[in-house]
Amino acid sequence: MRVLITGCTGYIGSRLASRTVSRGWETHAMLQPGSDTSRLPTSTKTWVYDGGIESVLQCVSVAQPDVVIHLAAVGGSDHKPSDIQPLLAVNLLLGTQLLEAMSIGPCSYFVNAGSHWEYDSEGRYAPNSLYAATKHAFQDLIEFYCRTRGLKAITLVLYDVYGPSDWRGKLIPLIVRALQTGERLPATPGGQMIDCVHVDDVCAGFIHAAHRLINENDTGHAVYAIRTGEPLRLRDVVAVLESAAGCPLNIGWGELSYRAYQVFQPAESIPVLPGWCPDMTLEAGLRQIISGADMPEERYAQPSRI
Amino acid sequence: MRVLITGCTGYIGSRLASRTVSRGWETHAMLQPGSDTSRLPTSTKTWVYDGGIESVLQCVSVAQPDVVIHLAAVGGSDHKPSDIQPLLAVNLLLGTQLLEAMSIGPCSYFVNAGSHWEYDSEGRYAPNSLYAATKHAFQDLIEFYCRTRGLKAITLVLYDVYGPSDWRGKLIPLIVRALQTGERLPATPGGQMIDCVHVDDVCAGFIHAAHRLINENDTGHAVYAIRTGEPLRLRDVVAVLESAAGCPLNIGWGELSYRAYQVFQPAESIPVLPGWCPDMTLEAGLRQIISGADMPEERYAQPSRI
Repeated sequence: MRVLITGCTGYIGSRLASRTVSRGWETHAMLQPGSDTSRLPTSTKTWVYDGGIESVLQCVSVAQPDVVIHLAAVGGSDHKPSDIQPLLAVNLLLGTQLLEAMSIGPCSYFVNAGSHWEYDSEGRYAPNSLYAATKHAFQDLIEFYCRTRGLKAITLVLYDVYGPSDWRGKLIPLIVRALQTGERLPATPGGQMIDCVHVDDVCAGFIHAAHRLINENDTGHAVYAIRTGEPLRLRDVVAVLESAAGCPLNIGWGELSYRAYQVFQPAESIPVLPGWCPDMTLEAGLRQIISGADMPEERYAQPSRI
Repeated sequence: MRVLITGCTGYIGSRLASRTVSRGWETHAMLQPGSDTSRLPTSTKTWVYDGGIESVLQCVSVAQPDVVIHLAAVGGSDHKPSDIQPLLAVNLLLGTQLLEAMSIGPCSYFVNAGSHWEYDSEGRYAPNSLYAATKHAFQDLIEFYCRTRGLKAITLVLYDVYGPSDWRGKLIPLIVRALQTGERLPATPGGQMIDCVHVDDVCAGFIHAAHRLINENDTGHAVYAIRTGEPLRLRDVVAVLESAAGCPLNIGWGELSYRAYQVFQPAESIPVLPGWCPDMTLEAGLRQIISGADMPEERYAQPSRI
């Protein structure tokens, strides 16, 4: 089994690569020039994407992947005008180039990462960010390649992914850090519901989706959720952490306002990936994090409001 | 009234600019560097788009358009791998940059050009080309700007646009040329239905949509068709032309196969732009073309199968 993964230097991608390598899959990573490969398993074969189609064609033609897992994305809840070009270059152009190269490859199976930020609570398209809009727009391009080139694709809609050693400035790392340092954390009122999914469950979802594409007779593009189905209010997530840690956090609830286009209720109507369910409860996942000594030294990239 | 039009050097755009100028609208054209401006009315103010956001921000901030009409597109029924980057650069990036600049401008009204190639006969998304897929994907980005920046937008879904002096290698110019030269024209079996809309009616649709955005209290993004609702088989279009000309054409029906993903029945379920209807019958439109001596000297850009 050969897999090509994009976004391998990211939090989910690097853990996914470890997992595909440990399953014995020949693992190829497509990277931006100058990427830090220190988190990748040493057996990962790396390819440099220079923005042009030729680098993608060559990678796919030599690596001959059975399946491509596309995680590379430029994210963020806000954007500046100057972010538009890099956002579209990764979230739309790179993905389209990959699909094109696969259609020539040939490689028929494509697993894509979506985001619940694309949707309102009813599962209708209601992007809260340009990032979410480009994620959704890209799926129109996937449909084209499935329709005219016979590709088969699954988009996995991701919710709040958390886990150990998360260096991203996301919600759970922030509150874990507040627990460890005792610092006071200003917060929103905390009424927003979040569906926390452990990164290892998310990686299992990507591998399950790859198997499903290969083994089932589905055609076209399907969209499935990777969610527990048991969202909690942010306040209740903090309560679970306090219970697991056995001590209270110092959180200034209500000191911050909700962000613009805050998602209060993550979409629950998107069907969960058939055959997948999460293994890790939130309590077990949080215990794993606070018991480990593995919080990264690195600075948090983008401190996020919680 | 100030209007900014992209794609002004194209067939529809250049005729639209003549029309907005003759209505007394201050008309701004955003052009690629080195564009041929010979078809633009001399009073058109031109802006050069260099691919970067700054050129778009500056244009919108100085021109201060009341409405933007976005016609620029890279088209085509087929694409090569090397076409992907320019296709996305115009059909997705430029449009997004425009929406961003409008949200800062401020300019609230955006009229966009869609294509019936995005849809099957039932009006479901079923792109026949990467061009059509990018047209559809872009509408997800429009939705984002309407939802979060208060823009109001109309996408007009275009069908088979024809008219005098059409230098594009499209269907009606090809058969008119065959009429004029007497040359034999190899053709498909000719059973595909086409909905021919005169370019002047199309331009009237864009102006009507601009008025509608300004005068109606609609919010968000609406999609309307610019179609006659009376599609004809290609063979019957040729029969109308033969009748108008009073002489037969020499067409080799069935000598070519239909193109891959040929649209046989254009979408009829997309609502027509309210308040708009075509003025020109197909017979009158074809008479206008064959009676004029205005067939362009230029070579047909991309001879198309009919």
